[in-house]
Amino acid sequence: MKIGILGGGQLARMIALSGYPLGQQFIILDPSQEAGAVPLGHHLNGDYDDPTLLEALAEQADVVTYEFENVPAETAEYLSAHTQVYPAPNALAVAQDRLLEKQFFHQLGIDTAPFAPIDSLQDLHNALSEIGYPAIIKSRRMGYDGKGQIVIHSNDQIDQAWQTIQQVPSIVEGFVNFDREISIIAARNTKSEIAFYPLSENEHRGGILRISEAKPNDPLQHEAEQAVAKLLNKLDYVGIIALELFDLHGHIVANEFAPRVHNSGHWTIEGAHTSQFENHLRAILGLPLGRTQTKGFAGMVNFIGGLPDSEKVLNIPHAHLHLYGKSARKGRKVAHASVCCNDELSFADSLQNLVELAEASDDS
Amino acid sequence: MKIGILGGGQLARMIALSGYPLGQQFIILDPSQEAGAVPLGHHLNGDYDDPTLLEALAEQADVVTYEFENVPAETAEYLSAHTQVYPAPNALAVAQDRLLEKQFFHQLGIDTAPFAPIDSLQDLHNALSEIGYPAIIKSRRMGYDGKGQIVIHSNDQIDQAWQTIQQVPSIVEGFVNFDREISIIAARNTKSEIAFYPLSENEHRGGILRISEAKPNDPLQHEAEQAVAKLLNKLDYVGIIALELFDLHGHIVANEFAPRVHNSGHWTIEGAHTSQFENHLRAILGLPLGRTQTKGFAGMVNFIGGLPDSEKVLNIPHAHLHLYGKSARKGRKVAHASVCCNDELSFADSLQNLVELAEASDDS
Repeated sequence: MKIGILGGGQLARMIALSGYPLGQQFIILDPSQEAGAVPLGHHLNGDYDDPTLLEALAEQADVVTYEFENVPAETAEYLSAHTQVYPAPNALAVAQDRLLEKQFFHQLGIDTAPFAPIDSLQDLHNALSEIGYPAIIKSRRMGYDGKGQIVIHSNDQIDQAWQTIQQVPSIVEGFVNFDREISIIAARNTKSEIAFYPLSENEHRGGILRISEAKPNDPLQHEAEQAVAKLLNKLDYVGIIALELFDLHGHIVANEFAPRVHNSGHWTIEGAHTSQFENHLRAILGLPLGRTQTKGFAGMVNFIGGLPDSEKVLNIPHAHLHLYGKSARKGRKVAHASVCCNDELSFADSLQNLVELAEASDDS
Repeated sequence: MKIGILGGGQLARMIALSGYPLGQQFIILDPSQEAGAVPLGHHLNGDYDDPTLLEALAEQADVVTYEFENVPAETAEYLSAHTQVYPAPNALAVAQDRLLEKQFFHQLGIDTAPFAPIDSLQDLHNALSEIGYPAIIKSRRMGYDGKGQIVIHSNDQIDQAWQTIQQVPSIVEGFVNFDREISIIAARNTKSEIAFYPLSENEHRGGILRISEAKPNDPLQHEAEQAVAKLLNKLDYVGIIALELFDLHGHIVANEFAPRVHNSGHWTIEGAHTSQFENHLRAILGLPLGRTQTKGFAGMVNFIGGLPDSEKVLNIPHAHLHLYGKSARKGRKVAHASVCCNDELSFADSLQNLVELAEASDDS
């Protein structure tokens, strides 16, 4: 089969690497010749709304998927009218709009932070008098890695925040005084079979994920599985989904979901019996889903900005390196490294060593 | 780094797949546009002795490796004069010639079957009167997967065998009444560090490998490690090597070695902490070698001739599929599937199921 991927970054790269053993071929639509997945498939070089390229993609690909949720709505519509697109555009529509997303969680009975839609400065004043401080204003659209978000601590920051967010349609959210940030990665295939990965426990800084650790047997596993299953079934979803959650005193509060493979699931490459990338492909190809259990203590660390020294990473016991074929650039995810081993102390040691290496090369 | 690979079949394909995460790029020299590794690198399309292509390869590649041992001697010499070649041509020279190979084993004090060089019909008669029956005549050069080998059971088959082998320089070997066929895969890097994988226990039929199983803690592990370490150090070898052995009543008898990644090590992709493919690259790039321990009970089954049904393979618990991008053809290795899991009974069940699938699609 020929699989089209919108976006040619590290997620597409890891999807393609896991797809060759399944006998798949790839067509990558990305505006950059330098994108990391380009050497792994046929490259359609141009914008995501280029009609000629979309026509070529629809014609050549048996199924199309994507590595980012901000696919233009017209692109998703065109492609789904002309070929198979997984996950289907309905999931994109919800995930692209923070207001629809929060309303969708509520409709499914999944708790979120208190929130309100904001279309004017007056809306923002009104909402904050309800929600209180601190609160976060987020643009409804085009946000990722902490972009398009401003924390508001007091009344006198409101006007400035509304200017900074450029008066675009937004939502404001109350602050969740969470104990932990967690996420659940799950897969649903074309036969509606679902597989859940063990929870990931995540550490962000500056809105960017830094560390994820697999947490099998977490007390919140069951609650998280129930929540993500509701999303999957309601959306008639096909592929990998990631649901980001807060652990608020032993209960989950939904933050957002990503309709794609997710950074907090990168530990699954070495750490689970089947990686999220392989299960994404199995799901969209209608193949049986692979086992999601961990193979030991498992986690990963992101390298942001500066490239890691391969030798230093690989000198750390049990460490595996994943370079994305990117050059160094401030704030950019350029690589990750994972650890998986059976001994808890060795695992913790190696992960800590990776964190120190990552901090040394981090310029953000 | 840019890594050149002579040969673009499944071994090159799996090397390339394991090399992208290490940030490597690939240049594949292969006479076929259809070769399985072609989509994973820059393709130099032509023969292994094409001077223009060899010049391009030497110029573009920082280091050159190969996926088969029958690289023309002039090619290996030219490349090693113009770029870094690992493993170095001295290993090729020995591995390409069954007589030199056997003599090399003896020089290192490693037992082999009784053998004799054969350059004439008279040589063959003389040798067989020493060695007895059954015996095997093998052409000194260009043999793999049982090709160029004829079993001789009695005096009256000698003349026919000599005709069939086309009177080329050969050796004759006595039959080893072995208990098991085993192999050891090992890696040695540019810093002379060595890592050994647990033994593989192998099952051949018609000269072609069918099944390999990892055997950690095998009683012959130590003896096999000592033997392969002698080869590695004597050859000042860099890369993965595979040493094929017989278990003769609790002692090893060397059969042959392959100066490359090897089919009996394919279980390492899912079954070991670091695959043979990744460790081959780590070795030739001067990176620290990764852990070679198993992650559970591990084994693999080859699909010969006919392509497997992906769904049937993936329905087998813990099974992973590796298609080589090849079309079906009698006697051709087109895929393998592996199993790795912690439960011995489930492992045995799944492996058996794979064997049955493989036999159903096998036309050889």
